[in-house]
Parts: sequence; C-alpha cells; structure tokens
Amino acid sequence: MKIALFAPDGRMGRAISDAAAQTGDIEIVEEGGDVLIDFSAPDALRASIDRALSGNMPLLVGTTGLDEGHESLLASAAEDIAVLKAPNTSLGVALLSDLVERAARVLSREDWDIEIVEAHHKHKADAPSGTALHLGLAAEKGRVEDAHDEMGRCGTGLKRETGSIGYAAVRGGTVAGDHDVLFLGPQERLILSHRAESRAIFARGAIAAARFLKEQGPGLYSMADVIDAE
Amino acid sequence: MKIALFAPDGRMGRAISDAAAQTGDIEIVEEGGDVLIDFSAPDALRASIDRALSGNMPLLVGTTGLDEGHESLLASAAEDIAVLKAPNTSLGVALLSDLVERAARVLSREDWDIEIVEAHHKHKADAPSGTALHLGLAAEKGRVEDAHDEMGRCGTGLKRETGSIGYAAVRGGTVAGDHDVLFLGPQERLILSHRAESRAIFARGAIAAARFLKEQGPGLYSMADVIDAE
Amino acid sequence: MKIALFAPDGRMGRAISDAAAQTGDIEIVEEGGDVLIDFSAPDALRASIDRALSGNMPLLVGTTGLDEGHESLLASAAEDIAVLKAPNTSLGVALLSDLVERAARVLSREDWDIEIVEAHHKHKADAPSGTALHLGLAAEKGRVEDAHDEMGRCGTGLKRETGSIGYAAVRGGTVAGDHDVLFLGPQERLILSHRAESRAIFARGAIAAARFLKEQGPGLYSMADVIDAE
Amino acid sequence: MKIALFAPDGRMGRAISDAAAQTGDIEIVEEGGDVLIDFSAPDALRASIDRALSGNMPLLVGTTGLDEGHESLLASAAEDIAVLKAPNTSLGVALLSDLVERAARVLSREDWDIEIVEAHHKHKADAPSGTALHLGLAAEKGRVEDAHDEMGRCGTGLKRETGSIGYAAVRGGTVAGDHDVLFLGPQERLILSHRAESRAIFARGAIAAARFLKEQGPGLYSMADVIDAE
Repeated sequence: MKIALFAPDGRMGRAISDAAAQTGDIEIVEEGGDVLIDFSAPDALRASIDRALSGNMPLLVGTTGLDEGHESLLASAAEDIAVLKAPNTSLGVALLSDLVERAARVLSREDWDIEIVEAHHKHKADAPSGTALHLGLAAEKGRVEDAHDEMGRCGTGLKRETGSIGYAAVRGGTVAGDHDVLFLGPQERLILSHRAESRAIFARGAIAAARFLKEQGPGLYSMADVIDAE
Repeated sequence: MKIALFAPDGRMGRAISDAAAQTGDIEIVEEGGDVLIDFSAPDALRASIDRALSGNMPLLVGTTGLDEGHESLLASAAEDIAVLKAPNTSLGVALLSDLVERAARVLSREDWDIEIVEAHHKHKADAPSGTALHLGLAAEKGRVEDAHDEMGRCGTGLKRETGSIGYAAVRGGTVAGDHDVLFLGPQERLILSHRAESRAIFARGAIAAARFLKEQGPGLYSMADVIDAE
Repeated sequence: MKIALFAPDGRMGRAISDAAAQTGDIEIVEEGGDVLIDFSAPDALRASIDRALSGNMPLLVGTTGLDEGHESLLASAAEDIAVLKAPNTSLGVALLSDLVERAARVLSREDWDIEIVEAHHKHKADAPSGTALHLGLAAEKGRVEDAHDEMGRCGTGLKRETGSIGYAAVRGGTVAGDHDVLFLGPQERLILSHRAESRAIFARGAIAAARFLKEQGPGLYSMADVIDAE
Repeated sequence: MKIALFAPDGRMGRAISDAAAQTGDIEIVEEGGDVLIDFSAPDALRASIDRALSGNMPLLVGTTGLDEGHESLLASAAEDIAVLKAPNTSLGVALLSDLVERAARVLSREDWDIEIVEAHHKHKADAPSGTALHLGLAAEKGRVEDAHDEMGRCGTGLKRETGSIGYAAVRGGTVAGDHDVLFLGPQERLILSHRAESRAIFARGAIAAARFLKEQGPGLYSMADVIDAE
C-alpha cells in the first residue's frame, strides 16, 4: 500500500513515515498514493482536497481547528472520494468515545453525573483538550440531549446542575495524554479511561485509518467506522 | 409493585427491604408478590423455584456458587416463568461487562493484552472475585474464543501467552469492591473500571431487575437485558 | 477517658458519639471531660474556648472557615491549655500532608510540577476543597516559598508558570472525598493519594486526636503532632 | 564532570551517554573519570570494583541480582572509596521508598493492610518486580518487623494474615513501570504511587547519583542519601 503525505516534514508527517517503516507493507510516496494524509493546518485544507480529488485518492484529515467552511469543503469532496476527518487518530480513543456514548445512553442523567478529567504536559496551551471535548460530545450523543458544560470549577456557593458535564484539566511534566470519563452515581462509579504512553499512537492510528479508507467508496467517515471495521 | 423475598432475614434480604423503603412505590410482602427474589444459598434453590412456579411469579436469583444442576433447574423453570440469574446485581457492573465485551471484540488479541485487577476487604476468602471472572468471560465472549487464565502470577522465567487474561487480587481494609479491566496495547491503554462505594448498590440493582422482570414473559434473562431496557 | 462535646447534636457530634461507643474505653459526658471537642461554627468558637478554659480541658477544634481573629483567640487560649485545630481530622490526610511536604522539599520546582485533584459528591458547594488547599500549603512549606495557584484552568493560550500549584475539582454522585497530589516530572510521576470511603473517618481521627491531647500541656498542636506521636 | 562507564555499549550505558549529552556539563570518558558507573552483570562486579579502586574513583553499581558475596565485596571496597548500590536509580522511586517507610512507621499494622501492585510490559520475566520487593522492604523497615509476604494470591478459603504484605503483578503491552503501594485502613486508604513514562528516568537518576558520589568520601551509600542531599 502506498501513502502520500501532504506535509511530509511536519511532526506528524515524520511520525507517520516512522510508523509506516515498521509495517513492512506500506510505502510513503510523493505522488499518486492509495491514500492521501493531511495533518497540516486549516489554511492548507483546500490544497490537500484538490490534490486528493485530482488523484482520485481517499483523504484522511487529522488537522484540528477546522471551522464550518472547512467542514462543507470536506462534505463536498466526499461526494467524489472517501474522506475521513479525525481530531484524534488513536484507536483507543476512538473506541473510548464509542463506549462513552453507550454508557451515557444507559445511565440516567438524574442519577449519574458525568465528569471528564484530562492530564497533559506542561506546555499544552488549551484546556480542556480537544479530545476531552470530543468525549463530552459522545456523552451528549448517548444522552440524546445537549449538556451544560461546567469548566474551570472554582469558588463557593457552587451548585452542580443535573445533566451537566464537568471538565477538569491537569497540566505538568511530560504527560503524553490521560483521559478519564467518570460516571458518578449513587454509591457506585463507572470510569472509562485512556492512557497515551507516547504520541506515536496517533501515527499508528492514522495508518490503520488509511488501510480502512483505501477500501471505501465516496463518503464521509470517522474513526468510529475504522473501529467498527476492525 | 410487590416484592416477595425468599430469605428476608439474610444480609441481602434486609438490604433489599431498606432499598425498597426508599422507593416509595415498592412493598415487601410475605406471599404473592409480583416478583420473587432469592439471595440465599444453592441448597435452597429448588424451594425458591417451586414457590415462584406455584405463585406464577418471575424469579430473580442472586445466589452464587450454582452448579450445572442448578442451571438446568433454572432453564426448566424459565419455560413457565421469567427467570433472571445474576452473580452481581450492580447496574454499573452489568454495564461494565457489556463494555468489556465490546472492547474485546474491537481490540486485536495480538496487540492488546487483557488484565483484570480487583480489590476487596481483608475478609474476602476467594480470589479472583466472582465478578472478576464474570468480566473475564465477557472479554472471552467479545474475542469469540476461550482464553488461557493467568492467575496468581509469581516467579521468574515467566512468559505471558498471547491472548491470555491475567487476574490480580488486592485484599485489605474495608474496600467494598473495585474492578479494573485493563486493555494494554502498544503505547496506549484502555481501562474500564467500576468502584462500589458500599454494598447497598447490589440491593438497588436487584430492585431495578425486579421492575424489569415484572414485565417479562417466560424465559432466561440476565442483567444485560435489564441494562438494554433502561 | 471522658470526652465532652460542644455540639453533641450536630452531624459530627453524633458521628463522634458513634465512634466512641465502638472503642470500649471512651465515655461521652456533658460536663467536665478530659477533652472538649468543638465541630460547630466560627461564631461559637469564643464560647467553646471559654468552656475549655474554665474547665481546664484541652480543646480540639474541627470547625472550618475560621479567620485571623479566631486564630488569635486560639493562640491566646493555648497559653493555658492544649489546643489543636484541624480542618480535616482524618489520620490518613494528616499523614498525606506530611508526606507531601517531604516530597515537595526533595523534588525541585523547576523539574516537578505539582497538581492537586480532588473529587467530592455533587452537593459540595466550594472548590477546591479545604483539604486540597491544606495539602497545597503543605507543598509550599516543603518548597519554602509561596506558590502561584492555578485554579479553574480553562481557555486557550495558557502557560503553566514554573513553581505554581494547580487545583482541579471533580463533583458528582456520592463521592465521600478523594484527594490526589501529583508531582509531574520529566518522564516520571509521583502520586500521593487519599481515599475516604465514608465520613466516619473524621470521627475516628477526632478521637485519636483527643487521646493525644489529653496527655499534652498548654500549646498549639496540629494533626501532624498526633501522627508523630503514633 | 567526567563519568566513566564500565559497560558503555550496554542498554543502560548508551542511555546514560544520551542523558549526559543533554546536561551540558558532563563528559563520558574511557579512563579516569570522576565516577565509575557499572550497570553490567554480577559476574563483572569484581572487575568494576578493581577498576574503581585502582583509579580511586567513586563507584555506582546499578547491577541487579547481586548475592551476599557481591555485597561483601562492595562493603570491603567502601572502606577506600564511595560506593552506591541501587536496584532502581529513579529519583522518584527513591523518594517513594522513603515515603513508604515513613507511612508504615505511622500507620498501625493492626488497622492498615499493605498491598503493592505493579504493572510492567508483557516481556518482563519476573514477578513481583525487584522494585516492588524493594518497596516492601522499606515498609518492613518502617514497621520495624519482618512481614509475611502474600504473593500470587489465588484460590478459596483465603485468610489475610495481620501485618502481611501482599504483592500483585500486572503484565501487558508496553508499560514502562507502574508501582502502587496501598495502605488499606478502616474506611480510608493512603496510596503512594510512581509512574515511569520511559526507561530514560533510570539514566537521569544515575547521573544525579554520580553527581552526589563525586563529593563523598569512602562509605556505602544508597539512593536515599542522594534524595536527602537534594
């Protein structure tokens, strides 16, 4: 299988090259791959879509920070090629997201409070993490209703609103990425967690997603589809 | 709704009475309930089945340590009444078991090692806990194959077998019951956990199961069915 | 040993009576005990100090929310009787506080970031918990310098300040009280944690503190002294 | 500062070279360093001692699996040079060991059960880990008495002995090394934990130990002394 990288010299581009080298059956090519992978920046999305369309290649987009304009560009491209957009390409996080949705569907919002705690290295500039927000959306999808977010909880006279989702962020050291989704109920707790030991897992997951995309027809896909196909 | 208790003076019988008193709409009766609950001992199973059959009541069996003879008695009774057998009636554990099966189905046995760690109070006489074994069976069901169990790991020259499931038991203090199912993969981990804060949760879950059973026709049910109906 | 309770009908007063009943050698008395215990409210402090002084009894104060005026009342009383003030009377938390101070002394502030995560039931009205702040002070004492607090971390463009202490609060369900103090360093982490399974531990710790106080002369004491004497 | 490596091409030798290169002030030399570091094998210990003695260099020994004969060789060398032996050179583990000893001294063996849980990658051949056993010894030292070890707990009719220390081993994936020391008491728990994110921390700790040793006169030292000097 041949993978074309839109930004081969970026941090993720190099990580994917390293991960591909370990597979034995994947070659990184400059032109004409079976799949095109873009982990660059929102501004470059139009160019990567053009390249995918002109080469009739499925497109994997790992870029974060996309807006509605980008989303509609991707939807339009998906009429002609397979497109998969993922804010986090770890297989473990994709599965966690699926399990969180399932748990939120079963556990009543009156009895079970949802809290999401994440930890990252000291240089991370945003809180909560994009993955934490993604997991929160999965919980809302399971509950079939929007939740009030409680972020940065601090102060006195606080009152937790029924059905809200709380977010807490830990920052320090070299933590690659921990995520805990807590369902806190009457006298019992269900905790669904993911631990990233290194950022190499995102490259591994991108390769698994590329293998999946190679076999798909036009359409919009997500990491959940990759998981379902495993 | 009226619940008849087969052993009203046992530890669980009293716990169910306490939990019922808090619901407002459930009455504990001596005869002729909507559902019969038996948390006694294997030897008494035949008597509780007879009572359920003669009263045409659905039967919830929380007794542990049942053998194949008991299982076939229950299967036979299930031709006439609704029967639910559960080694652990906590809703959280029932959901955990479902999520473990799902995760084991998705995560390949070559890459992801499954380990189950449980902690209980210092007086618990068996290890692993019945619930840990139940979770291990859920993982095997997801993987669609039997696993080699690695219990009591200790020594030198050890070699973890691909696809095996490891069990570790922690004992001490007053721990009501912690269960962690770990999926340990390449540079990432998925951890699915349950924490019991007190044993009252088993009575609460039994009542939820009784509500479910009241509406069912003849057949064999499990806590997974209760979860699905929520 | 005889313990006098300043507010015998309060939640903690009743919990201490229950815990005393289990010891076999402690009697709760209305007047003239060996030690006076006050878990009431800041406004009542002057009255409990007067009663302790007039009876020449050591005084244990578990009241929270005291201000500098109250502190100086206690310091003044400590010239005549033994006084112990504790925002949290759990022995485990007292020991944790001691270990946090020790760890903060050893681990350099340049390399190791300190974060405190606590979880409590959904009705708790303040965040961070008083115990989390108490643990943060222990860390500052170990580092021999004041720390910048980072509470309620949320947003973009964040930059963790070297030497700061972060606090995160989780709220939900019936959690009695979890506290984690994390030292996040280069490629390694030290985590010091306490789990309260029920609030009964505060009564048990109060009784241990009373036993300690009975033997002391005038002076200001803390739970750290109780720990040291064990 | 100049560090001589006894086995520069071994896994730890190369890791220490890498870590030294990041310090800016440490040079790896072939002969005549300020400190000699040996992470080789028990059989080579006599040779590394000879080299340290003839060069009048302090000696850091990270080799595991030493027997009493090796210990007496080291004790004898320590009459002439500074010698530090460490089965685990992580600073975090050294501090954890110190905190475990302190906690075990304070918490009564009647009320608080000690359990040690460790997790490592699937290829680790021994259980419990050497570090877990080292932490258990620290707990025994704090309690001033030998403990009965409970390893590989499995079966029925179990009875936890008062004062015993339990060990549980988790194996799977690529876990670099997790250690939890649990003090399980009446309705509360104190948990002291270490997480290694990568094995690079052992090289970092070895360099910190070498800096310490350079300033010491003859004698036998441990990582606890390095910690105390920080």
